[in-house]
Amino acid sequence: MSKIMAINAGSSSLKFQLIEMPAERVITKGIVERIGLNESIFSILVDGHMKKETAEIRNHEKAVEILLDKLIAHQIIDSFHEIDGVGHRVAHGGEVFTESTLVTSEQLKKLEPLTELAPLHNPANILGIKAFQRVLGEVPSVMVFDTAFHQTMPESTYLYALPYDYYKKYGIRKYGFHGTSHKFVSERAAEILGRPIESLRLISCHLGNGASIAAIEGGKSIDTSMGFTPLEGVVMGTRSGTIDPAIIPFIMMKTGKSVDEVLTILNKESGLLGLSGFSSDLRDIEMKAEQGDHRAELALDIFASRIHQYIGSYAARMNGVDAVIFTAGIGENSSTIRAKVLKGLEFMGVYWDPEQNKINEEEMYISYPHSLVKVLKIPTNEELMIARDVYKICDQIFVKG
Amino acid sequence: MSKIMAINAGSSSLKFQLIEMPAERVITKGIVERIGLNESIFSILVDGHMKKETAEIRNHEKAVEILLDKLIAHQIIDSFHEIDGVGHRVAHGGEVFTESTLVTSEQLKKLEPLTELAPLHNPANILGIKAFQRVLGEVPSVMVFDTAFHQTMPESTYLYALPYDYYKKYGIRKYGFHGTSHKFVSERAAEILGRPIESLRLISCHLGNGASIAAIEGGKSIDTSMGFTPLEGVVMGTRSGTIDPAIIPFIMMKTGKSVDEVLTILNKESGLLGLSGFSSDLRDIEMKAEQGDHRAELALDIFASRIHQYIGSYAARMNGVDAVIFTAGIGENSSTIRAKVLKGLEFMGVYWDPEQNKINEEEMYISYPHSLVKVLKIPTNEELMIARDVYKICDQIFVKG
Repeated sequence: MSKIMAINAGSSSLKFQLIEMPAERVITKGIVERIGLNESIFSILVDGHMKKETAEIRNHEKAVEILLDKLIAHQIIDSFHEIDGVGHRVAHGGEVFTESTLVTSEQLKKLEPLTELAPLHNPANILGIKAFQRVLGEVPSVMVFDTAFHQTMPESTYLYALPYDYYKKYGIRKYGFHGTSHKFVSERAAEILGRPIESLRLISCHLGNGASIAAIEGGKSIDTSMGFTPLEGVVMGTRSGTIDPAIIPFIMMKTGKSVDEVLTILNKESGLLGLSGFSSDLRDIEMKAEQGDHRAELALDIFASRIHQYIGSYAARMNGVDAVIFTAGIGENSSTIRAKVLKGLEFMGVYWDPEQNKINEEEMYISYPHSLVKVLKIPTNEELMIARDVYKICDQIFVKG
Repeated sequence: MSKIMAINAGSSSLKFQLIEMPAERVITKGIVERIGLNESIFSILVDGHMKKETAEIRNHEKAVEILLDKLIAHQIIDSFHEIDGVGHRVAHGGEVFTESTLVTSEQLKKLEPLTELAPLHNPANILGIKAFQRVLGEVPSVMVFDTAFHQTMPESTYLYALPYDYYKKYGIRKYGFHGTSHKFVSERAAEILGRPIESLRLISCHLGNGASIAAIEGGKSIDTSMGFTPLEGVVMGTRSGTIDPAIIPFIMMKTGKSVDEVLTILNKESGLLGLSGFSSDLRDIEMKAEQGDHRAELALDIFASRIHQYIGSYAARMNGVDAVIFTAGIGENSSTIRAKVLKGLEFMGVYWDPEQNKINEEEMYISYPHSLVKVLKIPTNEELMIARDVYKICDQIFVKG
């Protein structure tokens, strides 16, 4: 029996989940917010209640110290030594990291040059890794990459039709993200379907504030909608998704903005927010759409239609599909979006039950039993996937050691 | 019986075709090249032979004068008055022009502001229109827009997920191009299939040096792969097609190039040329690929796979498809590309004959007779489409007059 800590560190936040393995039981979870700002907030689940307090937490190392102290103070663990491993979500593993990897000084050295591919996320992830190393010392820690699962994409998929040197010199290619989630739900889908994952063609729709679709053949990602960065692909909360690249210089010319300002607009002020004009939150937009707001309706239709077309595209990629999976905030909770996405896929054997789609169960079939293509709703669990990878890798260490 | 001149004017060239209507017989055709440069070239088809001569042709008006003089000199016509109408291909009609339109000073005024949407093409098209007006005087002339056929796309298709104001203020939306070709081959497909176009769902693949795919439902374009500009969509001879827009600032950062320089690279040095490293011409690449050149093979695979996935995407758009059409240089002539594009679409009812695919007939079925989805090869004929529209519009004038 092991206790594994799964960590998702941002520039001013640190989400954690302590999981007992192999039982896969969440012992506690929480978040440290506003790290390095005034009035940092520490939240932790104790006996089923989220306890929240403010404190001065000036950096990630301090956040880790407080987190560990609180685990003891709340009698969740008796000693730091009970933590057998720490797993860190890392945004970008480039082409270097094709699977979850034990942290060593050598591996950290390989990680550093990748910062330029994820300048907002990787540095925060590294801060988190180093903070735990300093506080916990010898405990093994593992990096779990958002990109790793997609490293199985073939060259003809990950290459853009750009001058070839841009790939060789600068690493410009499709990487894809949300890999941990796509992997988790595809493995779970195989269990639910009762078929070996090697025999399955799956399309996984991770629809949260960020959203991506993946084509998963025989358990391997062979295509995904996000690209060089998480901007590409379907429409998201505040991201445009795919657009004609020539729009960037046109906006610059029209507004006098710099290329970086335009990129920020594409990442932060577009998507559902840009279309609706009032919110990036799908729940707000669904509410307004029900009241007949035209732009809210439009935002829903555009959001859903792009996903709908990706499903067709990825079915073509695999010459058919065995199951379509919906996951993450919107995928798990919006029956409206699922209905819009699924409408009109009968030509490829998708027959789904509008009544079933409205039922509020965590994990369930949305397709009719006779549907050639199954449709599943599966809650994603990236933290558990991290814990599994840490457990697996630590187990190998123990065996070796 | 009418003689209609179909014109496609570029910045330094002017292609023409004189067509007898309604017989749809090509009387002659040719091209004026290097207008405004030294050693302009005039080519014209006389008695089945292309006659070529150099001349000094300093502007489009001069090109039109020479063209008309030559028609008389070669006894193709006896007098200018035999020309009953002139049709001009115009690249961009914006949202203003939803169909082919008789040229009047009022309509030309509406055309002018659209130049910013097609700064390279519309000015040349306007030069061509004005040159014919000056030389021919009262003869009716008609503008046939590359964008017009796609104006039937619904709002949820043509809008990008950008701040909504960018559409309202700057006209940033999907326009689509190659409309004349997509319209021509879809109408011809309906004839070949012997079914009313209103009942058909068609996917038309216009694959030339520029390439675009269109979803055509009931004779109306409801989606197409080119966007705000012809850069978006599938991979082309020198255009990248769709890429992660965040790649633009990254290339700028890495190379120190300006946004306009990067845009030029995406338009002129990418696509098949960028991938292969030696040619934008598919025939060269096929030859090298046969010799085992890896990057040539890669270029073919990437080119074909993007089209393959669009077919799946557009089938999803229409909940199925009745026929897939291949047209334009590559679509009509490359059995290799057609085979790669069609491979693995059985899941949606596409059954095609590899032997038939290799047969060199201009217009033919590639699908098996029992295939649920028909596959057709149809030569495009934009000039004829232009002539048809001119004839139709001029006919209305004669009736009115």
